[in-house]
Amino acid sequence: MTRTLYELQGQDDKRFSPFCWRTRMALAHKGLEATFEPVQFSQKDKIAFSNQKLVPVLRDGETVIADSWTIACYLEDKYPDAASLFGGSVGQGLARNMNFWVDMSIHPALARVIVADTFDNAIDTADQVYFRESRESRFGMTLEEFSPRSDADVSKLQNVLSPAIATLNVQPFLSGDAPAYADYILFGTVKWAAASTDRIVFPNDGPFGAWLIRMYDLFDGYARTSGAAAA
Amino acid sequence: MTRTLYELQGQDDKRFSPFCWRTRMALAHKGLEATFEPVQFSQKDKIAFSNQKLVPVLRDGETVIADSWTIACYLEDKYPDAASLFGGSVGQGLARNMNFWVDMSIHPALARVIVADTFDNAIDTADQVYFRESRESRFGMTLEEFSPRSDADVSKLQNVLSPAIATLNVQPFLSGDAPAYADYILFGTVKWAAASTDRIVFPNDGPFGAWLIRMYDLFDGYARTSGAAAA
Repeated sequence: MTRTLYELQGQDDKRFSPFCWRTRMALAHKGLEATFEPVQFSQKDKIAFSNQKLVPVLRDGETVIADSWTIACYLEDKYPDAASLFGGSVGQGLARNMNFWVDMSIHPALARVIVADTFDNAIDTADQVYFRESRESRFGMTLEEFSPRSDADVSKLQNVLSPAIATLNVQPFLSGDAPAYADYILFGTVKWAAASTDRIVFPNDGPFGAWLIRMYDLFDGYARTSGAAAA
Repeated sequence: MTRTLYELQGQDDKRFSPFCWRTRMALAHKGLEATFEPVQFSQKDKIAFSNQKLVPVLRDGETVIADSWTIACYLEDKYPDAASLFGGSVGQGLARNMNFWVDMSIHPALARVIVADTFDNAIDTADQVYFRESRESRFGMTLEEFSPRSDADVSKLQNVLSPAIATLNVQPFLSGDAPAYADYILFGTVKWAAASTDRIVFPNDGPFGAWLIRMYDLFDGYARTSGAAAA
């Protein structure tokens, strides 16, 4: 059976989409092989078969699934004998909440910190006009005005992040003793930052830094060596 | 076997401690009977046997446990045949993260909204000097300066709360299809607000309001009728 993940491709082949990384890590967690098909913002025709416009899209044999959360639930249901992404219904419910927390609390704070860097360092030249125009329309100001690379914005991000840091101070993973999908949700966001800037925006020391090392070490160092070579 | 929960008591016998409510709901979830022993801030001698100064304290037969999270873990281990509070290790790990999120993100935002009301309406007269002095020392300003009952502070709270509202828009409980300890963590905080003010500080409509009704309905309306009669 053919399994293909369509994921966002950036400058120098960087894979910087946090949502696509969630699915990458979920596939690795389940031990499922896949081919990765790069898609730039300007190549939405590549995923027209999914009847929507956003990556990630997973084609699993004859089945097509869009949206990282929907894909995770699909994988959990379809491959129940592989390692669980959620550890049961309570874990799935709370992972859903983690998904919203990262999307609605962490991402807005992180965007302030790095989106100008994302433009400079992660967006392919062919996509830069689209990226700038769509984001500046959303923000109501230029990328550089929205994201002035200020230390104050880094502090605000780390303040929003503080509950996760506290959790990682008392247990090795957000999901407890072993990694699960909730960890991949936040880790995908770290990969977005890593592809965008060399500045330290997430802590690289303390409990969070130790968790990052554990996450990068998973699956034989998968997140170091695959996909985002330059990140 | 005797089981006693020592919990904070306020004005007109109100039980307004969010941490004590977590344990109340955990006991109800497990179907465990308990006697409730009220403790005012000025009555720390009542819990001296626990070798620390904070409620809740649970005395379960010969075992004494302090701290709401520690108590929840104890109950889960000690009474494994009763309904699970966590639904497994992933659910427990993510509930721990919820615990930190409520304590570190929701409580500071809520304190701005209601702590002056807590002083006026929930703290017993005998405790008011202690409460004001300890909090004003911590905040570096008067209770009324810290908590001016502004609409802006309510908006900030609801912004921090927004991921939980989004979760409750797609599933009935934070823990998924059924309530579990993560729900009781946030619900305890709502009880604190309800004992402090009649103002609407948490949404009473939409997905969050519907969740509140479900939470109040649990265990034959337990949180309406027990403990905090006036809340």
